[in-house]
Parts: sequence; C-alpha cells; structure tokens
Amino acid sequence: MKQGKAVVLVSGGMDSLVTAAVSVRENKDIFFLHLNYGQKTQRKEAECFRALVKHYKPKKFLETDLDYFTAIGGSSLTDKNIAISDHDPTEKGIPSTYVPFRNAQFLSIAVSWAEVIGAGKIYIGAVEEDSTNDPVCRKVFFEAFQHTIDTGTKGDKPIEIVTPLLKLSKAEIVKLGTKLHAPFEHSWSCYRDNVVACGTCDSCVLRLKGFRNAGLTDPITYRKR
Amino acid sequence: MKQGKAVVLVSGGMDSLVTAAVSVRENKDIFFLHLNYGQKTQRKEAECFRALVKHYKPKKFLETDLDYFTAIGGSSLTDKNIAISDHDPTEKGIPSTYVPFRNAQFLSIAVSWAEVIGAGKIYIGAVEEDSTNDPVCRKVFFEAFQHTIDTGTKGDKPIEIVTPLLKLSKAEIVKLGTKLHAPFEHSWSCYRDNVVACGTCDSCVLRLKGFRNAGLTDPITYRKR
Repeated sequence: MKQGKAVVLVSGGMDSLVTAAVSVRENKDIFFLHLNYGQKTQRKEAECFRALVKHYKPKKFLETDLDYFTAIGGSSLTDKNIAISDHDPTEKGIPSTYVPFRNAQFLSIAVSWAEVIGAGKIYIGAVEEDSTNDPVCRKVFFEAFQHTIDTGTKGDKPIEIVTPLLKLSKAEIVKLGTKLHAPFEHSWSCYRDNVVACGTCDSCVLRLKGFRNAGLTDPITYRKR
Repeated sequence: MKQGKAVVLVSGGMDSLVTAAVSVRENKDIFFLHLNYGQKTQRKEAECFRALVKHYKPKKFLETDLDYFTAIGGSSLTDKNIAISDHDPTEKGIPSTYVPFRNAQFLSIAVSWAEVIGAGKIYIGAVEEDSTNDPVCRKVFFEAFQHTIDTGTKGDKPIEIVTPLLKLSKAEIVKLGTKLHAPFEHSWSCYRDNVVACGTCDSCVLRLKGFRNAGLTDPITYRKR
C-alpha cells in the first residue's frame, strides 16, 4: 500500500517525468517542486511542469525563481552570451552547459520543504551513466548530501534522497516511463529551444538515442532527428 | 601576505560582520554574498549589508532574493502569522525562528559562485555554542557539507568552508570584532524590528549578553537593554 509524503523535483525534463511517475506509484502524497533558474528553455520547462501538475495532481506544488544563477553565470545554459554547442561524441570533459553545484541547491530547497511538511523522501531524477560528467549526478555526491541532511535537520523524522534512475541508461528510462504511462509529450529535454527541440544538443542526442535503443518513438517534435 | 579569493556570506548580522572582518584580513579578493529570504528584518539587514559593502569594498558583491522560504514557511522569521517570541532562558528545544536547512542553501549558492570565480574559500559566521540549537550551525554539519562540496564540484581547485567563529562565545566575537575595528553600528541582529532593536528576542538577548560579558557597549539603539 502506498504511504508517506514525498517531495519530487520536477524540472519538466524526461528523467524528472519518469521519476515523478515512480514517486506517484510509491507514495501516498506527492509534492512537486520546480525551479526556474534562468536557463534558456525555462519557459518551455515550466509549461511542461504545469502540464505534469495537471496530469499527476500532486497534493501541493511549488514553482519558484532562482535569479542568482544568471547573476553567477559561467554556464551556456544560463548565459545568453555563451552559445549551446552541438553534441560532440569525442568530447570527454565537462561541457559548457555545466551549472556548478546545481543539484545541491535543488536538494537543499527540497529538504527545507520536506522538513516543514513532514515528508520522508525526496525524489530526484539524476542519471549517473548517461550524465555529461556532472559531479552532482554521481552516487558519491548523493551519499555525501544524504549525510549532510542527516546532520543538518532536526532528526525527529529522517529525510531520504531517492534516485530511482541513477543507474539506468536512457533506454531503460524510456522503457520504465512507457510502462508507467508517463506522458512524454509533456516533457522537454532540449537545452537550446523553447518551441521545436533542436535534436543536436547533448540533451536531445541522449534522449533520441534512448528512444531509439528502446525501440520506441519520442512523441515530441524535433528539427533534426 | 594576503592571497586568494574568498566568498563571504554577509547577512548583516553581528557574526557575519566579524566574519567579514576576518576574511578581509586573510584574503586578497573578497566577494560578498547576501541573501534576502523574506525574513521580517530583511530591509534592515540589506541596509547593513550595503553599508558593509561600502566599508569593506569587496571585489564584487551579490545580493539576491530567495522567495521560496516564504512559500515554504514554518518559521516565525519568515511567516507573518507567527509572532517572534521573547527570549526564554528555560527553553531548551528548537525555537520558532528556526528556518529548516537554511545554511545549506546559503552554502550551496556560495559554492556555485566560488566555482565560477575560482574562489578557494567560503566564509560563514556560524556559531556553535551560542546558537539556538540549530543543526546547521554545528561542526558536524559543516564537515558533512565540506564532503558534499568535495564530491559535487569539478575538483580542479578545492573549495574550503571557513567558520572562524564556530567555537567562540558571543563575548569573544565582540572582542575579536573590536580588535579588527569591525563597524558594529552597521550590523543588525534583532529578529523582530527594522528600526529600533527590540532587546528581548533571542538574538538581541544573546548579542547584548556578548557585549556585556566583553565589557563593551553595543553602539546600536535598543528599545530595552
């Protein structure tokens, strides 16, 4: 039987959509959290978030703006003067879309909310294998953050980070979402555009590959597949 | 010789003022970070922050609004429907002014900024002994957060949390600030008021006791001393 409360980080991306679908299956009350941080596709991601709120009907949802990411800069995702580059399979380093320590802020906000509402779980759709070398998507980071939660909260009720997709490939995520009837049409992964997904940025390429390897078709429209 | 870059969390309170004074002594370039999180004395604290920017002339400063704390609620510091209570020396638990996981958000933002500008240190004026049982003011929390930074950043340049006041009493903080010529008149600790400090909330009582035990006089005006 489903029980308990969970805060779910829902960016509007494919991974967060499937994570939301998992959280709905495992918890009685879900609370959706969405952060606009000045990323170039903020408008489209917020639109997807609102569609997912309608679809999954969380007990509560919170959408908030984090203006400081734009002020801090340093990422092509938030700085309009740095272009989003096309996916380059030979690239092994940290890409220009890297936003330093982003998941730490997202988790911190989720923990504050979880403690106030008495939620015992926080779901985040991080993916280790397919992620673009971002340190905040690795298991060791989530273990460290879990310890930070354990030491930094009142402790009368433990708050656990749940990463259901951490060890999955994109194809496995597509299959899991399909099994859970996740509405992929209400998710957005493109780093570049708000209307038609470009199909050539890192995020589009990974998503399309996931669908292809799963033998399924992505319902959203791409400029180039 | 002073060297390196440091991000300094400057709330405008007395502890952050003395921390700023220490950071100026120890680093070549300082970067002041101030977060408005909807606390009742936000206006006055921001005023102090701006006065400290004028006084210490950091290389850069960043002031930003975190609207979500008000939306999350659950603290008398941010919820206008919960009154700030007077200090009660018999109270041993976590007070109503507790803002869950606050320092985690502040540190996370500081880490993002530090990584972009290449700062190796983050100063925060947390005080363990005199703090009001807030788990995010304890050494064990900062150690856990340090490990989170170590696992969640690129790692080409370590970022270290510095807590120069952690083990000091309020009287020792007053003495240290006095020695460093910290402008106490540009700091604000009262939880309740924006114009004249109440003198009776937890924060005013701790600050006044610190000055008294140090044998010094606080230059700011109180309704009741």
